[in-house]
Amino acid sequence: MQRISDLGEFGLIDRIARSARRGARPRGVVVGIGDDGAVLRPRPREDVVVTTDALVEGVHFRWETQSPKAVGRRALVANLSDLAAMGARPLGCVVALAAPPDLALRTVDGLASGLLHEARAHACPLVGGNVSRASETSLAIAAIGAAARGRVLRRSGARAGDRVLVTGTLGGVALDVARAERGLGRVRRIPEPRLAAGRALARVAGVGACIDVSDGLEADLGHLLEAAPGVDAEIDPARVPRPRGFEATCARLGLDAERLALAGGEDFELLFTLRPDGPSSAALAARLGVAVTEIGRLVRRAHGARRRRGGWRHF
Amino acid sequence: MQRISDLGEFGLIDRIARSARRGARPRGVVVGIGDDGAVLRPRPREDVVVTTDALVEGVHFRWETQSPKAVGRRALVANLSDLAAMGARPLGCVVALAAPPDLALRTVDGLASGLLHEARAHACPLVGGNVSRASETSLAIAAIGAAARGRVLRRSGARAGDRVLVTGTLGGVALDVARAERGLGRVRRIPEPRLAAGRALARVAGVGACIDVSDGLEADLGHLLEAAPGVDAEIDPARVPRPRGFEATCARLGLDAERLALAGGEDFELLFTLRPDGPSSAALAARLGVAVTEIGRLVRRAHGARRRRGGWRHF
Repeated sequence: MQRISDLGEFGLIDRIARSARRGARPRGVVVGIGDDGAVLRPRPREDVVVTTDALVEGVHFRWETQSPKAVGRRALVANLSDLAAMGARPLGCVVALAAPPDLALRTVDGLASGLLHEARAHACPLVGGNVSRASETSLAIAAIGAAARGRVLRRSGARAGDRVLVTGTLGGVALDVARAERGLGRVRRIPEPRLAAGRALARVAGVGACIDVSDGLEADLGHLLEAAPGVDAEIDPARVPRPRGFEATCARLGLDAERLALAGGEDFELLFTLRPDGPSSAALAARLGVAVTEIGRLVRRAHGARRRRGGWRHF
Repeated sequence: MQRISDLGEFGLIDRIARSARRGARPRGVVVGIGDDGAVLRPRPREDVVVTTDALVEGVHFRWETQSPKAVGRRALVANLSDLAAMGARPLGCVVALAAPPDLALRTVDGLASGLLHEARAHACPLVGGNVSRASETSLAIAAIGAAARGRVLRRSGARAGDRVLVTGTLGGVALDVARAERGLGRVRRIPEPRLAAGRALARVAGVGACIDVSDGLEADLGHLLEAAPGVDAEIDPARVPRPRGFEATCARLGLDAERLALAGGEDFELLFTLRPDGPSSAALAARLGVAVTEIGRLVRRAHGARRRRGGWRHF
């Protein structure tokens, strides 16, 4: 079996760079992979949006439950989802890959092919990177996007009275992970970053705050509320949209469906608030090109009351 | 002793974000740390430059030989140096920090304060990040810069006949690391990213190729030559500039001074080529605001000859 130590640092960089360069150079990339930095060109009157997210072996994934390709795809999707939540379009990404020297070359090939698959699917070319030895595999990606000035969606801006809405369904990825951890197959569900929906949402009048659901509905709603002092959310758990067959599968596995939908992370749907006189969820769904469900509303917090916080912790 | 596990993921993010936000928001930062992404604003007719570099415990640093603050500083300086080598000015940076849960909080504070020290010194604000558990500490940074269109310095563009020049001195960091590894004190030398020099160099007529010396003179010169087929370099090792007292200290430690100057990495000086009729090194030094030494020239490679390659390997 070939290991990455057989290639060396520069050999590994060349190998990934060659795959990344395949095909035409995307518009907006002036200098791609292979220099001290990449050069990207936003359009006039666009701002630049930057985000970073990392996947670490043993923390965010295990080889037993996920294919290398799925890990590579998820790593980029997490970043693309952050761009989507800002209403930005992707310009390009860079990756810092760390791995043990005895990692199989085909595992790195899988990671790279997963990453490049999503990069092509969402016009977010890999334009640079870095490889290093480490005792476990990790991918730290930074994605760069662009958005029309004054048009970015923010976590701040939620107000009492706002309606709370979410795209797509929640809990599906958490269920998939729970299945895989019970030995019932590998994680298969790769969520779709809501890039087109985020860009469309940035042009909707009356949007308050927006975030992507990466830590779970409760935790990410908590992030929106942190930026809105004195505001609380009333969410109807029964209205939180779940994938088809979700309850039945949860019941079969002895899992709490409601908990999974409220606390499960990485669905990468957009969670946002909307002024009361904003469009209906049906009208929004048509504009965003994705299902939109109203799950509750924001209220002024009762004097002296404390807010609950959900979500999971890394440390 | 407080450990980072006492704070949890969000607590640690809040702690670093609070330090990063201290002081006025730098120009060009529309949205700083704390949202799904940061928003940066280049000037009209500027392109965006992106680079990434990582430091991993046990590979790029050891706590025994380097203070956390020095590690944090080096991590950002490596990225700033890549921006310098492109002739770009910094806009901002993001960091993916991974660390064991039992890492002392004051160690993370040291890393963050080193990073923020360089961020302030070079107007490259920390605008976002990510923290994760891992079995060893690492910092993967992406830095975003801006450069006037058509003005970036490239690794490509070297031609036979070009003179080869370097800023500052080489070997100093390698000597400092060698001293530290012999138990003679910690690594103290933090190289200066040549940002102003790089920007000035981008406006000099007749510059061929440019790279920063991160892997060592031989290896980085090799990168320039890879982009210039059929071209070879004739370097006079005696002319490679070294810090004051370098030979004496090397002799005392039994180190090969010439090897250290040619192969030692992380000095982050600019290595560049210049057409024969370009300015003198004295004139360049005045324009760049830093010492500039001519160390050799590029020649057409003899038919059938092979090029030597130096530098060090990660895997």
